[in-house]
Amino acid sequence: MIKTRAAVAMAPGKPLEIMDVNLDGPKAGEVLVEIKATGLCHTDEFTRSGDDPEGIFPAILGHEGAGVVIEVGEGVKSLKPGDHVIPLYTPECRECDYCLNPKTNLCQAIRATQGQGLLPDGTTRFSLEDGTPIHHYMGCSTFANHTVVPEIALAKIRQDAPFDKVCYIGCGVTTGIGAVINTAKVEIGSTAIVFGLGGIGLNVIQGLRLAGADQIVGVDLNPGKVEMAEKFGMTDFVNPSEVTGDLVAHLVELTGGGADYTFDATGNVNVMRTALEAAHKGWGESIIIGVAPAGAEISTRPFQLVTGRSWRGTAFGGASGRTDVPKIVDWYMDGKIEIDPMITHKLTLDQINEGFELMHAGKSIRAVVEF
Amino acid sequence: MIKTRAAVAMAPGKPLEIMDVNLDGPKAGEVLVEIKATGLCHTDEFTRSGDDPEGIFPAILGHEGAGVVIEVGEGVKSLKPGDHVIPLYTPECRECDYCLNPKTNLCQAIRATQGQGLLPDGTTRFSLEDGTPIHHYMGCSTFANHTVVPEIALAKIRQDAPFDKVCYIGCGVTTGIGAVINTAKVEIGSTAIVFGLGGIGLNVIQGLRLAGADQIVGVDLNPGKVEMAEKFGMTDFVNPSEVTGDLVAHLVELTGGGADYTFDATGNVNVMRTALEAAHKGWGESIIIGVAPAGAEISTRPFQLVTGRSWRGTAFGGASGRTDVPKIVDWYMDGKIEIDPMITHKLTLDQINEGFELMHAGKSIRAVVEF
Ligand SMILES: [Zn+2]
Ligand SMILES: [Zn+2]
Ligand SMILES: [Zn+2]
Ligand SMILES: [Zn+2]
Repeated sequence: MIKTRAAVAMAPGKPLEIMDVNLDGPKAGEVLVEIKATGLCHTDEFTRSGDDPEGIFPAILGHEGAGVVIEVGEGVKSLKPGDHVIPLYTPECRECDYCLNPKTNLCQAIRATQGQGLLPDGTTRFSLEDGTPIHHYMGCSTFANHTVVPEIALAKIRQDAPFDKVCYIGCGVTTGIGAVINTAKVEIGSTAIVFGLGGIGLNVIQGLRLAGADQIVGVDLNPGKVEMAEKFGMTDFVNPSEVTGDLVAHLVELTGGGADYTFDATGNVNVMRTALEAAHKGWGESIIIGVAPAGAEISTRPFQLVTGRSWRGTAFGGASGRTDVPKIVDWYMDGKIEIDPMITHKLTLDQINEGFELMHAGKSIRAVVEF
Repeated sequence: MIKTRAAVAMAPGKPLEIMDVNLDGPKAGEVLVEIKATGLCHTDEFTRSGDDPEGIFPAILGHEGAGVVIEVGEGVKSLKPGDHVIPLYTPECRECDYCLNPKTNLCQAIRATQGQGLLPDGTTRFSLEDGTPIHHYMGCSTFANHTVVPEIALAKIRQDAPFDKVCYIGCGVTTGIGAVINTAKVEIGSTAIVFGLGGIGLNVIQGLRLAGADQIVGVDLNPGKVEMAEKFGMTDFVNPSEVTGDLVAHLVELTGGGADYTFDATGNVNVMRTALEAAHKGWGESIIIGVAPAGAEISTRPFQLVTGRSWRGTAFGGASGRTDVPKIVDWYMDGKIEIDPMITHKLTLDQINEGFELMHAGKSIRAVVEF
């Protein structure tokens, strides 16, 4: 057992508490990782705030990290101490029905325990000073200087990749780019509309640029997002508050009949409907990326589907993490995609609650905590 | 100009009136066809009854016919007198953006005029004795012994195929089988659920059998449909009124986690939701075939899509009619698919209103009028 410094979510709606916690060593099939950097994602805040009906406390949140393997448990063959890794909240066991089906990335190998904030053997490795167990989060718990993660939930990456940038590949980058490449499989010359120009939306946009899309329309109520979105490849901007008349009709006209692909990165169910209906008749596909509030529902007339539109969704960008995340790290290192401009704030672990304030104020694209 | 015998929809909600009407000869790009047989489809009844908000009167309904070319207009190259043909309510011009896109079959070449009950030059060929124009219907108007149809809306079929059977390929057969083969692209070994065991549902079932599906679950409130559905390939029957508890949960269990493909052939938006949610997490696709009442909307939680289900629709089974309909006729002639047991009633044109009564009473799968 070691002591490690962590930001602990003690109760819903409370600021994270920075403290030393106990961490047991890795059991069979597990790996002890020293986290070097972690991003702060909206999903962490969703749980911290108490809005997540499935939130469990106390817990160590964080699911967008990068670090170094310190020790491997019994039977771990694919990793060794010194390897650089990115924890995966969607693991890749390469053995379950889901991993063996090329149509999905939703590995189910450790799903039940992960959802309960536990490692696969049904226990936690973290505990408070008094011995109270602290739950894991999304199988990652990257808001700690050290964490224990199943081998199947770690992507091995190249040693020269900077932790404070590639940690973002652990969630936002892969989610956005993967939605384009893995889920939509956008072809060269396509037209696309991206709703919501936050971190995910920007990554969708650079995914579209990478895929060779001809027209990349961004839709956001905040014109302050335009400059950054253009930098990542946006060709047209639409501010719904400045459109007179029907937004769908405006977008259909702008894209010459509707877009080949539309992406919702807002989590707003009304926007999801607009995204579907702005897809091209006959072949347009609309991909839901954003997570909607509990209980919210999407609706449309079935005519929209019968006339050829498809409504789909994506989780972790359809990526099989151990296979795809190292490639995305390579793309970053090769300059095919950009991450640096999106890391707008660097924090210490002690400043982590300020990161959530920046998120709420809309001042950050991504705040990263470096250990 | 010739005289031909037709069943005319003079006004919404009224029985069809059998009478002699005037029919002008084919103009450029048009073909005069002698209709030998025509099926009665729910869509005809939807318009006849007055429920169709886009219905236009007077009109000659019918869109599921088969016949012989009598005369071709100027410039018609692909057909000659004596050719056997099936009229297509979804044409195939092979030149428009839609025809050139393999993702869709929704040829737009003559869409505007067809929707107005007119031939492409903006006029009708049919008229009443007093000269009043009679509108065309879905570009076909097969409830007449002779009709004029654009060349791009005629599939040329083999001469030995019986008109009174293959007329059904003009709508129901192609819609059901095509939903499986063209839209869903069902793979060998798949599991599937079909909601609604009427004519379309039966054709979905035989499409699934043809595609090599392992499990074909039929869902219907009427146990009287079981025998016929089993004949076409249904492996399991579920009567929702006999399921205690949640229907989706029951279907998910029956199919080992949800079906790879689900099909709604009911037109009921609540059933469409059940169909989506009974599709397998990760990769299940749900295809809407049925036409919903005007204004009805489908809904679900976006979580259903984010966890890997796709919601899609199909029109005319995704078939490009001039290319695909002759193949389906071959499949029938080769015994790969069955049609005969579904043609439950044969009528004369004078009996056509009885055919709609049989439809309402649920006594027919398909009633066919022979001229
Ligand atoms: Zn995230
Ligand atoms: Zn797996
Ligand atoms: Zn029909
Ligand atoms: Zn066309």
